[in-house]
Amino acid sequence: MKFVIRAGGIGTRLWPFSRREKPKQFHALVSDRSMLQTAVERIDSIAALEDVYVSTGSALAEGVTSQLPDLVEGHLIVEPALRNTGPAVGLECVLLEAAFPGCIVASLGSDHHIGRPEEFCRLLKAAESAVSEHPDELVLVGVKPTRAETGFGYIQKGEVFHEADGEPVYRVGGVKEKPDLDTAGAYVSSGDYLWNANMFVWRAGRVLELLETHEPDLHAGLMEIKAAVGTSAEQSTLERVYPGLKEIAIDNAVLERADRVAVVEADIDWSDIGSWSALADVLPVDEKGNLLSADAITVDSTGSTVYAPEGKLVALIGVDDLVVVDAGDALLVVPKDMVQRVREVVDELGERDDGEKYL
Amino acid sequence: MKFVIRAGGIGTRLWPFSRREKPKQFHALVSDRSMLQTAVERIDSIAALEDVYVSTGSALAEGVTSQLPDLVEGHLIVEPALRNTGPAVGLECVLLEAAFPGCIVASLGSDHHIGRPEEFCRLLKAAESAVSEHPDELVLVGVKPTRAETGFGYIQKGEVFHEADGEPVYRVGGVKEKPDLDTAGAYVSSGDYLWNANMFVWRAGRVLELLETHEPDLHAGLMEIKAAVGTSAEQSTLERVYPGLKEIAIDNAVLERADRVAVVEADIDWSDIGSWSALADVLPVDEKGNLLSADAITVDSTGSTVYAPEGKLVALIGVDDLVVVDAGDALLVVPKDMVQRVREVVDELGERDDGEKYL
Repeated sequence: MKFVIRAGGIGTRLWPFSRREKPKQFHALVSDRSMLQTAVERIDSIAALEDVYVSTGSALAEGVTSQLPDLVEGHLIVEPALRNTGPAVGLECVLLEAAFPGCIVASLGSDHHIGRPEEFCRLLKAAESAVSEHPDELVLVGVKPTRAETGFGYIQKGEVFHEADGEPVYRVGGVKEKPDLDTAGAYVSSGDYLWNANMFVWRAGRVLELLETHEPDLHAGLMEIKAAVGTSAEQSTLERVYPGLKEIAIDNAVLERADRVAVVEADIDWSDIGSWSALADVLPVDEKGNLLSADAITVDSTGSTVYAPEGKLVALIGVDDLVVVDAGDALLVVPKDMVQRVREVVDELGERDDGEKYL
Repeated sequence: MKFVIRAGGIGTRLWPFSRREKPKQFHALVSDRSMLQTAVERIDSIAALEDVYVSTGSALAEGVTSQLPDLVEGHLIVEPALRNTGPAVGLECVLLEAAFPGCIVASLGSDHHIGRPEEFCRLLKAAESAVSEHPDELVLVGVKPTRAETGFGYIQKGEVFHEADGEPVYRVGGVKEKPDLDTAGAYVSSGDYLWNANMFVWRAGRVLELLETHEPDLHAGLMEIKAAVGTSAEQSTLERVYPGLKEIAIDNAVLERADRVAVVEADIDWSDIGSWSALADVLPVDEKGNLLSADAITVDSTGSTVYAPEGKLVALIGVDDLVVVDAGDALLVVPKDMVQRVREVVDELGERDDGEKYL
């Protein structure tokens, strides 16, 4: 099995740490290693370095290389433009299928927290086993939901159709887009639904077959790139064709349309760290519920999250459930229950003449 | 009349801007000039530079000189130790009386905001006129109270006993220490009380006479210093005697005990800028009541005060009545109604091994 760590994300909601040139996955938010470094290290028991690839956008390529000095040369897949996950996953499938015809690929995120990495590796191996025996299956990693979250897609879990090492692999009844709160609540209480963690195990060739059926134009572009792989025109073809590929999520392009989708049920202490409030759910807090990733003095303050650069002292007095993030040149202060609105600041910066430097 | 600007204060409640080596009065909190510079400039219509003196502690002497390059050489009065306002005012009286026997002195603060400087100058001239005619009077500047403030002393206004240029000077019924809230409310609603702004006009010699009567030990020390003025032993005598002088406020040492105390009633848009919340009372705020002394983006935020260094972007989302002060190496976040508790942070820093650098 080949492993692709997708590291092209933007992580807007983690602004001001997350920036265009140094997004979320490059930061050590959860440990002293960056999330990208952790994403590679967590699979080292099942993935030799020669089987590990990283995909990212061209603006971030240098950052990936400097964070992962041991990444094998040529294992960095650089997308010439941001075209969403459909083209990104298509490109990784094209390149790996060209190099290793018939290969199975685990396509994984780089900016999620997984508290139980051994269990995660066991599930990936079970998914690989399912795809080995059933080569047309697309196997998803579905996370056991812990709350009625409206920010994630949901996967309807069906019957067990495969078992590997005691781990059941389920048929998928359907892949649902982000639901409203009532629907999310019904999903969670039914026990039949899992969060879509956007991690997949499948044959690269199978994904390309499905793209041929459901997104023929996208597929045709990918084939043009594939034909140039290994030739002197590989890079120029990629740079010419890729930016014109249809911008579509892999969920819409393939997952929602495929008839053979499966899922492993993951109880792996997972968080997408999708916002500043999510960090306190996965990291230890003090006796007042404060997550202090800074030299901090708190007076009568509870439930708050503080990030600041080394050498900066942060004093909180009388605040509750507040997020304070100092990124050196930019400072964010927002109550935990409003962290989703960080996007509005990012949007406003995009409109300001001098906003670029903070993005 | 000679003018002494007292610039030896600490301004703890304005931490993290206010530091031991660069306290409140050295900062441009209210305009683009520091409060000390503004204190000198606001009297320039009545005070020639050769009549202006500045007193401060030895740790701050260099800072004063660099902020006030035009201060006449020898007009910086340096206290070898912090001994409260009794010895500080005593020292300025000793030095000025030695140089200008019989002189009248206006002893003024350096860290207060005065929105109507011309009116302030007019009042100082009226006070000078009263002391010229009634050389035993101690004339205070009493500020018309605008709220039942418990953080100030109060001056009970009596009958008019002098008038200069249409400005009445009142006899003082009593100088009261900081009252409780009920008493403060009664003071304010009576219309008979004024805030003690700790600014005085008097003859230097009269203050020394009163110290001789009420604080003979302190007076004796001051006389020892006076005897050395102009000799080669002046500096060594000052350094030997001053640190041993009784630590006492001028209010307790003289004002509360004198029988000839007067007051001018000041309607001068005064604020002691005694806390971070006080700034929004004297500076213009935006349409949401935010005081933004920083490059700031606010989303659904009201009544908040933001100070940050140039080049730092501050984003506030969904916060109300919050103070956010970024001083570069230290950041303070506190609701406006808890700003008095900044002291607790300063106290904690004093106890920490590495706290010194933030003080």
